[in-house]
Amino acid sequence: MRAIRTFAAVVLLAVGAAAQAQTDALPSWNDGAAKQAIVAFVKDTTTQGSANFVPPAERIATFDQDGTLWVEHPMYSQVMYCLEHVPDVVAKKPELKNVEPFKTVLSGNREAIAKLPMNDLIKILAATLTGMPVETFQAEVKKWLAEAKDPRWKRPYTDLTYLPMKEVLEYLRANGFKTYIVTGGGQDFVRVYAEGVYGIPPEQVVGTAGGTKYGYAKDGKPFLTKEPKLLLNDNDAGKPEGIHLMIGRRPVAAFGNSTGDQQMLEYTKAGDGARLSMLVLHDDEKREYAYGPAQGLPATKVGTFTQALYDEAKKDGWVVISMKDDWKRIFAFEP
Amino acid sequence: MRAIRTFAAVVLLAVGAAAQAQTDALPSWNDGAAKQAIVAFVKDTTTQGSANFVPPAERIATFDQDGTLWVEHPMYSQVMYCLEHVPDVVAKKPELKNVEPFKTVLSGNREAIAKLPMNDLIKILAATLTGMPVETFQAEVKKWLAEAKDPRWKRPYTDLTYLPMKEVLEYLRANGFKTYIVTGGGQDFVRVYAEGVYGIPPEQVVGTAGGTKYGYAKDGKPFLTKEPKLLLNDNDAGKPEGIHLMIGRRPVAAFGNSTGDQQMLEYTKAGDGARLSMLVLHDDEKREYAYGPAQGLPATKVGTFTQALYDEAKKDGWVVISMKDDWKRIFAFEP
Repeated sequence: MRAIRTFAAVVLLAVGAAAQAQTDALPSWNDGAAKQAIVAFVKDTTTQGSANFVPPAERIATFDQDGTLWVEHPMYSQVMYCLEHVPDVVAKKPELKNVEPFKTVLSGNREAIAKLPMNDLIKILAATLTGMPVETFQAEVKKWLAEAKDPRWKRPYTDLTYLPMKEVLEYLRANGFKTYIVTGGGQDFVRVYAEGVYGIPPEQVVGTAGGTKYGYAKDGKPFLTKEPKLLLNDNDAGKPEGIHLMIGRRPVAAFGNSTGDQQMLEYTKAGDGARLSMLVLHDDEKREYAYGPAQGLPATKVGTFTQALYDEAKKDGWVVISMKDDWKRIFAFEP
Repeated sequence: MRAIRTFAAVVLLAVGAAAQAQTDALPSWNDGAAKQAIVAFVKDTTTQGSANFVPPAERIATFDQDGTLWVEHPMYSQVMYCLEHVPDVVAKKPELKNVEPFKTVLSGNREAIAKLPMNDLIKILAATLTGMPVETFQAEVKKWLAEAKDPRWKRPYTDLTYLPMKEVLEYLRANGFKTYIVTGGGQDFVRVYAEGVYGIPPEQVVGTAGGTKYGYAKDGKPFLTKEPKLLLNDNDAGKPEGIHLMIGRRPVAAFGNSTGDQQMLEYTKAGDGARLSMLVLHDDEKREYAYGPAQGLPATKVGTFTQALYDEAKKDGWVVISMKDDWKRIFAFEP
């Protein structure tokens, strides 16, 4: 009888340990305030009877992409995509060859290219995309992503996604949350790979969006082409405005990393009940990059994490994620 | 032994009959080409191994609302909502009292009101909504819907939804389809009740959408207010354009009832594989209204079903639903 009891106790212990292991849905996170905040939030909002219980239909979580889900340094990959397409564009419209900003891009002068203002990048974007059928654009992005490589790691951009954040996406979905990308990047661009890379379907990608135009091909088949008209600038105040337009509910959790995410994080935190607003701090010079406020780096094209943003996070109760301290692993390809 | 076999046969027959009964997911439809087309389409796209099998993630079905999911005659209910709010607006801005179109609306002259052009209705809409916090708008619509009654049936507008179409929504969802409303009506308006009435969450309602503006209340809390800027006119070519913006995939099935749905139905039908485009024909003067092409009715504010649209449906292989012949019951409140 004692033997049986002992055996049962051992089995129970083993089962308990297995359950324990299974419940660590965030193995790439170090134990700390950030990880604890995520786990506590999920428990608080999904446990029946909890004062902060959120019905499944209202479990909306939004994630910025560049710098929050994948590397944004030294330049957004979508900007890379457009710059690399300039030779094609100029081949079709040779009159652009000696016109700025195309001239600078064609010069190959990296320093000069890096200094191009956002306005010039938008000109390049419009020239690259206007009149292109949306399916052609999708096919081209797919092809580019399969071939293009990040200059530092020499790997496809889609490899440079943060493993700890992918675990958060999975963990939230396993607990009934609908995960959205809310990016300043191009909506049509991100939608091409979001399903394969993040498990997020196109209809759950909100981004900077241009217009399209409905028309008919010679055989009478209808199709859509890209237009230079900007419908949604999904940055800053454009993020909560885009969330209202595309989702129609205030998120319960939001994740960002720069001043472009400030309003989304504020808007999320201001809702009733338990809310989670998190900010990824790039403070890991060795394993990724360091460009948080403490680093005193010059402003770059990448999202800026200012001291003011850090102060607001502390004051408003957002949780700051230190890449250096909170993440055990950053990329899936690294041990 | 024979008795057992007979018993088994009877049981099998009974089980078979029960299964048969269970598979009629469309009990409010008469057997006919329209019902058969829906059932055949679902079987064709969801049966593993079928040449036209559509993976669950791509099963997108879009539905127009006014005239397709609920009654649109004699006037869109959202227009009713706005007209009924004019006295409130004028109370706050008395200078509008003697200005058109407000003057006509305040006169109560039904005939004159019915003749107001769309441009005037948009003016009323802008005056009624601009600067209103989105949550206030949601609460007001909810309140109005609970009290307002359709002039003919003396019932809440939300009772005037078509039972056969609600069965189609359920049937498609039960087969892994994601159902969307794609309406010329106001997106924010329809989102208030779509979940309760159709089982369609706010994020699956695409409609005519105005801008919003992010700002802060006196206590520092951020909120969004409605702006007069039009972001998406979700009619005609605006429907496929809105689908691309908000969903990012071409639907596999689409349902409409007027020229405003033409492009959505074309766009859906032009995709590869099995596609279902359906058109509701209002030809039941007795149980609802008759304003199809055969009726020779004058153009009204409600969606128009022209002879040209009917001809395109026949040529392009869309399925026309006759309310009179295909629908056994129209409303849930009728026997």
